[in-house]
This record gives sequence, structure tokens and C-alpha cells, in this order.
Amino acid sequence: MTMDLEQETRIRYRRTKSVSRAEDLQKEEARVRRSQPDKPCHKPRDSLFSWSSGFNNFTGLVNWGFLLLTMGGIRLLLENFIKYGIRVDPEQWLIVLTGRHEGGADHPSLILIMYSVVPVVVCLLIEKGLSVEIISYIPGMVAHVINLLVLVMIPMVVIHVKSSGFSLIGATSVCMTYSILFLKLWSYIQVNLWCRNRRQSMSKAHLRRQSLSFRRKSASNDVPNGSVDHQEKKAEADLVHYPDNLYLKDIFYYILAPTLCYELNFPRTNRIRKRFLVKRILEVVVGFQVVMCLFQQWIIPSVKNSLIPFSNMDVAKATERLLKLAIPNHLVWLIFFYLMFHSFLNLVGELLHFADRNFYRDWWNANNIDTFWRSWNMPVHRWAVRHLYIPLVEVGYSRTAASVAVFFVSAFFHEYLVSVPLRTYKIWAFMGMMAQIPLSILSKFMEKRYGPRWGNIVVWASLILGQPLCIMMYYHDYVIMQVGEDLLDRYGHV
Amino acid sequence: MTMDLEQETRIRYRRTKSVSRAEDLQKEEARVRRSQPDKPCHKPRDSLFSWSSGFNNFTGLVNWGFLLLTMGGIRLLLENFIKYGIRVDPEQWLIVLTGRHEGGADHPSLILIMYSVVPVVVCLLIEKGLSVEIISYIPGMVAHVINLLVLVMIPMVVIHVKSSGFSLIGATSVCMTYSILFLKLWSYIQVNLWCRNRRQSMSKAHLRRQSLSFRRKSASNDVPNGSVDHQEKKAEADLVHYPDNLYLKDIFYYILAPTLCYELNFPRTNRIRKRFLVKRILEVVVGFQVVMCLFQQWIIPSVKNSLIPFSNMDVAKATERLLKLAIPNHLVWLIFFYLMFHSFLNLVGELLHFADRNFYRDWWNANNIDTFWRSWNMPVHRWAVRHLYIPLVEVGYSRTAASVAVFFVSAFFHEYLVSVPLRTYKIWAFMGMMAQIPLSILSKFMEKRYGPRWGNIVVWASLILGQPLCIMMYYHDYVIMQVGEDLLDRYGHV
Repeated sequence: MTMDLEQETRIRYRRTKSVSRAEDLQKEEARVRRSQPDKPCHKPRDSLFSWSSGFNNFTGLVNWGFLLLTMGGIRLLLENFIKYGIRVDPEQWLIVLTGRHEGGADHPSLILIMYSVVPVVVCLLIEKGLSVEIISYIPGMVAHVINLLVLVMIPMVVIHVKSSGFSLIGATSVCMTYSILFLKLWSYIQVNLWCRNRRQSMSKAHLRRQSLSFRRKSASNDVPNGSVDHQEKKAEADLVHYPDNLYLKDIFYYILAPTLCYELNFPRTNRIRKRFLVKRILEVVVGFQVVMCLFQQWIIPSVKNSLIPFSNMDVAKATERLLKLAIPNHLVWLIFFYLMFHSFLNLVGELLHFADRNFYRDWWNANNIDTFWRSWNMPVHRWAVRHLYIPLVEVGYSRTAASVAVFFVSAFFHEYLVSVPLRTYKIWAFMGMMAQIPLSILSKFMEKRYGPRWGNIVVWASLILGQPLCIMMYYHDYVIMQVGEDLLDRYGHV
Repeated sequence: MTMDLEQETRIRYRRTKSVSRAEDLQKEEARVRRSQPDKPCHKPRDSLFSWSSGFNNFTGLVNWGFLLLTMGGIRLLLENFIKYGIRVDPEQWLIVLTGRHEGGADHPSLILIMYSVVPVVVCLLIEKGLSVEIISYIPGMVAHVINLLVLVMIPMVVIHVKSSGFSLIGATSVCMTYSILFLKLWSYIQVNLWCRNRRQSMSKAHLRRQSLSFRRKSASNDVPNGSVDHQEKKAEADLVHYPDNLYLKDIFYYILAPTLCYELNFPRTNRIRKRFLVKRILEVVVGFQVVMCLFQQWIIPSVKNSLIPFSNMDVAKATERLLKLAIPNHLVWLIFFYLMFHSFLNLVGELLHFADRNFYRDWWNANNIDTFWRSWNMPVHRWAVRHLYIPLVEVGYSRTAASVAVFFVSAFFHEYLVSVPLRTYKIWAFMGMMAQIPLSILSKFMEKRYGPRWGNIVVWASLILGQPLCIMMYYHDYVIMQVGEDLLDRYGHV
């Protein structure tokens, strides 16, 4: 304990005209005061919270915030266990996953996922036909469009007709697989089209282009021409060229690879890092258990408890329920994001020697909604830019029109992924996507008006609150319409 | 939506011996790939969460944390209103404040606070007697000690005997007033003792010292001697010297001033800043209402709900209750701190032209418990250093012994301020103070082992959790012992 009392700034006295004289006098006074026998310990200074003190070090409050958050989390956990007991029941997971609840031995989800090989092979055959010019351009494209439309329709029809055979997770997996396939095949067809176009233009102006490119290169490069030429030839020789890519092995590698953008020569890693692989496998296995536990223990009881206030339009209670549901839902979303976009896609990438792991960017720092949508799901974002936005702009549409097109395709697939498995053809997911437009305007306004921090807060708020709102709306309709109520009971295990 | 996909770091390939050659080849490959007709968009890079990416910008998560905290707070507020309705009842405040519940017209709290003038005047009279040497040293000190002991005993005896007349807040105010007076008068007596000692030594060696100090000053100072002498004389003449301070006006200014350390010439401000004053008054008035509301609406129901789990030693439920109680309690403590140490003491200081506003330091950044105790209550801390720690060290005690003495005096007053108003002579507050010793060791260990952040977290945790624990223990004993149960019912207004 030391006498470390003298540090803060002094009260700012009113300055008079004779500043220096007054200061001299003050200094002298202070010196005289210090020599007094009463050991003075006071001196003029402001409290730290006064603006005039100039103090602004509140770093401890960040620790305070996160401590309160942790304590709040622990309390919610305890409250949950006291209220509901232990609801986690791994046996239920199997039923939910396989949809075996009705004693039926057929697994329509698995069959549908296996069936998805067919459109892939059909697509490859059409491409092969186009490349060797058995099929001409127009009929080839019509065949592709029909193939893709059938691909998207299959889950809708089968799940609608044979609804009892599907578990919620099974149906969602099917829809997810078919959506991804749709995007992947679209990319495959478009890239092969680019290659065919180049081959045609190459064969027309083959000699002229080659000599031109040679002159340009020798002008811009310092390395002796022979060496460059040699290296270039070697590099070119290592690459796969159209139409050598049109084989089953190539297309299946692409279908399994963690990307939606086809190219003929994916960057590859030299080896599989075993420790990295083991970590990702552990994350997927453990994370999946955690998500299932959170679901059974926390989300399902919360959703059920929220139903009555929501039906009655009781604003205070419904808001309270929504905020309570938001926490576990957000937690599950965060874990799901990490599992899906970091653990799972990296695992697949490592196994396939796929070198580009750009599956997400730092969306957590996004200062407006647009940046968030451009950052959180990079495979889809890159697909949208490469295969929808840029082609549309190149064809002559305005940037705005191209953005709107991307937006609507995205909205369609969100709706598809929610409505088809739930079999409630409501438009809440679509509305949720539409709500991104005013949210985007709001977040940009906040960012400009109050700084990036507030833009970021709007993004987080829309994430944390938007999702449980959509969930409640779907669940509400689900129960009201009595559609698949038995499925939910099973799922909820009440 | 721009094509801003190329930013993250690349996957670190295994370096072979021919690094430069391999790099050349890679560059060439990349160039060749880019010129391919399939518009390649992939390149080798790591995901941001992988250590090898080197990414560490998670600033958005701070916003996320505070947003979740705010939402949690709003939810708790809503839950509270839904569960308990509106409990705020200003009429109760008057009863609580004045203790008028029994219809009695006597206000023992007010009478006791007014009576506190007597020991102050007695103290001044003794000092006056000592200064004019009517009373000699030993009897004078004995009289002072008796006066101070009586001062401390008065609230204990009166509140114990006439218990029904006191409200909890009234009794607390009385104890607070008498504790502050005790510390203030201790300081007053000690400072006057210092002055008397100096006067005696001065009169013995008056001439020698004056010539010595003159020679020293002229050697060390550049300004012409005449000017210094003049300034010094002027400064000296402005100061009050012992025994000219021994008047009622001086001692009452000191008693009212926001400090516990007496000195003869307090630093003064030139004027009362009206806007500053109005702000502080508004803060005190509004803040007081907020604290009362939080108390009635949130803390009292929480404390009552926690009683049964605490009695039954039900660990899970008791912990959940404790964590739930911790939030409003901590909130009230924070508001109380601001009101007391910033608003109220600054208000008093402004009114009295008292210039030293060092009432608290940045305890929110404290990295260990010791720093926290040295920072949060500066008047007491400065009193302890100036009037207990330094004198003890000067007398010859070790620094550790002096620290222990400070600690025990502090523990005594904490116990005094809690036990006397509650009339439960338990030692929970004393134990709470004792718990600071292991906590201090823990926080210093955490600070050294894991960095200052963790020391700060221990400090916050002890603040947030320690207080509700003490409250629950006192309340528990209160109810179990059936002492003043009626008072609590009144107070809680169930």
C-alpha cells in the first residue's frame, strides 16, 4: 500500500488575463502548503467520470461484460435443468435421423440421396455429346434445363407424395443435397460452355493468337525466352484441357469437393495432414452431439412454451419468449456454422486434397447486412458472383438488376430448404429474405450515421432475433394447421 | 457486389529443397491457370479459423457480447414484470425512509443524526483546551478516546434498545453518519496533534530553522530572493495557521466536506459551476428513484424466492437463485456507487467550493483485489493511509502489520454498518472481509499466471457474486431467527 494518490488531472481553473502570474502564485502556494505541519493531502482535481478529467480507460468493462454473459449462460443452463430435467435421449436421435419410427424398413431419404447420381451422369452424358458434337447446342441446352428442373422437382414431389416416410432431418438432407447438386451442375454446364466457346474461337484464329501471345510475353518478361517457354509448356502440359475433363472421375471429384464452382484444374494440396484431419473429425463428431443435446434440452421446450403467447398475440410474453428462445437458437446456429463451414468442409477438403479452404470470411466483423451475406457462405457467394452476377452483367444487365437476380435465387433456395421438408408452403423464409432489404438500408444508415460499430450491432441483432422469429412462425403454422403434428411430437419427445 | 475474393493467406506448402525453383513453377502455373478458358476462381488458402491462416480480428464479437447482454437484460425485465406485475410503490418509500410505520411521531434516526453535533463540539472544545494548554496532553487524549468510543457506541445501544422505532434505512443512515464522524474526528485530532508538535519544536528552534530554510531556498531558486520572499510571505499569509483553525466554522466545513482527511487549508474552487451542479442534483434525484424501483421490483422478490433453496441446501437451485439475484444486486451496487461517489460527493464538493474530487479511481480496471480496495473508495483509502498506515509505520511497526491493522479496522466498520442496523450480530460481513485475503492471493496468482485480464475477471467475479451471497446469508438468518420479521414484511411489501 503506497501513497500513490497523485495522478489525475487538475481541475481547470478559469484562466484570468495574468495567467503566468496566477500560475506562479499557485505553484508557490502549493509549495508553501506542502511544508505546513498538517501534512495536506488534497489538491484540486476532477472525478474520473467528469468530462473535464479526460479519463477514458474502461477496458475492465469488457471483462465485466463477458463475465456477466457467462454467468447468465450458466444460470440459464441451471434453470433449464431444474425446470425440465435431463431431456437428452440419444435413442431419439436415431429415429429422427433415419426416420424409422413407423417400423417401415424403407429409407426414402437415403434412396433419394443415392438416386442423385442419376442427374449427374445424365449431365455428363449431355456434355460428352455436346463436346463430340453428337448433340448440337440448342437441344443440348434444352436437355440440361430439363435435367436441372427435374432435379429440383424430385424432392418436392417425392416428399409431398410419400410424406410419412421422411423424418424432418432426412427430408432436409435430401433438399440440401439436391440444391447443392443444382448449383454444382449449373456451374459445370456453364464452365464447359466457356471452354467449348474458346475451343471454337481458338480453332478459327489459332495461328494468329499464338504468335500474338508469344510476342506479348517476350516483351514483358525478363527471364530468357527459352526458359519461359519451357516452363509455360510444362505448366500447360500438367493441366487438364477440355474435353479431357469429361469423365466420371472428374465430375465425381467435383461433386464431392467443397465448392460450387467448377474448374478443370482445382488447386491441390501435396498431402493429407493427419493431425488436422483427426481434429476436424473430432469436431464434427462432438459438435454434432452438442447440437443434438441443445436441441432436445433447450430449444424444443422453449419453442413449445412460446406457442400459446404467440397464438394469443400477447406482446410482452411473446417478446420474453422470443428473447429466451433466441439464446439457444443463436448458440446452435453458431455451433452449426463452425461445424459445417469450418470442420466439415475442411475435413472433406483435406480428404480430397482440395487446397482452397475459403469457405467463409470474417462475417462477425461485418458492418452491414450486405457484407454479412457476402461473407458467411463463401461457396454460395462465389457461385452467385461467377455464375449469375458476372454473366448477367456481361450480357448487358445493370449491376442492380444482377444483384436483384442473385437475391431472388437466394430467396428461392431458402424457401425451398425450409418449406419442402416441413411441407408447409408458407412464405416466412421468403419474407425473412425480403426483410434483408430494409435491414440492409438500416444497417448502412447506422454505419454511416453512428460508425461501423452500430452497423455491426444491427447485423448481429438481425441474426440473433430474426431466426427465432422465423422458427416461431413456422412452428406456429405447423401446429395450427395440424400438418405433421405427430412428427413434431415424435421429434420433441414430450 | 464486387469480386473481392482474393485476400486471405495461402496454405503453407511443405517447402522442398529447391524452394525458389518450385516457387517459380508455382507462379508460372498460376499464370497459366488464370489464362485457361474455365475462368478458375480457386487458389490454395486456409480457412480463417485454422491457426495457419494467422487471422485474429474478432472485434465484432465485443459488439456481439454487449448485444447479448442487453437482450438478456431486457428479457429479465420483461420476465420480472410478467411474474410479479408492478411492485413499485412510492408510498412505501416514505415509510421505509422515515420509519413512521408504527404511527409513532418520533423519528429516532433523525434525532440521532442531529445529536451527532454534540461529539463534534466536544471534540472541538477538547482541542481548544489543549491548544491554550488548559488541558494537558494525557487527559486531553483520554477525553478524546472516550468521546470517540461513546460516539461509536451510541447507535449500537440506541438501535438495540429502541429497535421498533428504526427503519432499516434510518438505522443504516445513523450508523453511516456515526462511522464517518468517527473517522473524521480521528483525523481532526491527529492533524491538530501534528500542528501542536510542530509549534512546540518551532518555538524551541525558531531562529535556527528560519535562517536555515532561507539559505536553502536562495541556493536552489533562480528567481531574485526578494520576489520569492515576497511571494512566499504572501502565500503564507493567505493560509490559516494553527491554532486559528479551532473554530466552529472550520470544523463544520470539514464535517460537511467530502473527505475524511482534515487539513487546515483545503484547496478551493473559485466558483460554483451551475450546470455541473444541476446535473449532479438530477442524477441524485433520478438515480435514487431508480434504485428504489429496482429494489422493490427485482431484488426483494428474488431474495424471497431464494430463501427455501438456501435453507434446504439445494445446491443447484441455490446457485441458480444466487446467479439470478446477482444481476439486479450488481446493477444496484453500480448505480449506488455512481450516485454516492460521483453524483453526491461532487454535488457536496461543488456546493462547498471543495476542489479535490478524487473520490474514486479506475477500480473497474483493477487487476487484483488489493488494487480494487485501494481504488473504489478513495476517502476511506486516503484516511487509512494517512492516519493509520503511515503513522504505524513511522512508529516502527512493519508494513505488513500496518496493512493488517488497516484491514481489521475496515472489517470492523463493514460489520458495524451491517450488523447494527439489522440487529443480527452475525459475522457474515466480517467473514466477507476475511474472504478478501484468499481472494487477493487468487487474483494475484491469476494476474501473474494468466495475465492482467484474468486478475480483473477475478475482481469482477468476487464483486458480482460475493455481495448477493452475503445478502442471502443475512436474510436467511434474519428470517430463521424471527428477528424483525415484521420489519422485513413491511419493507418487502408482500
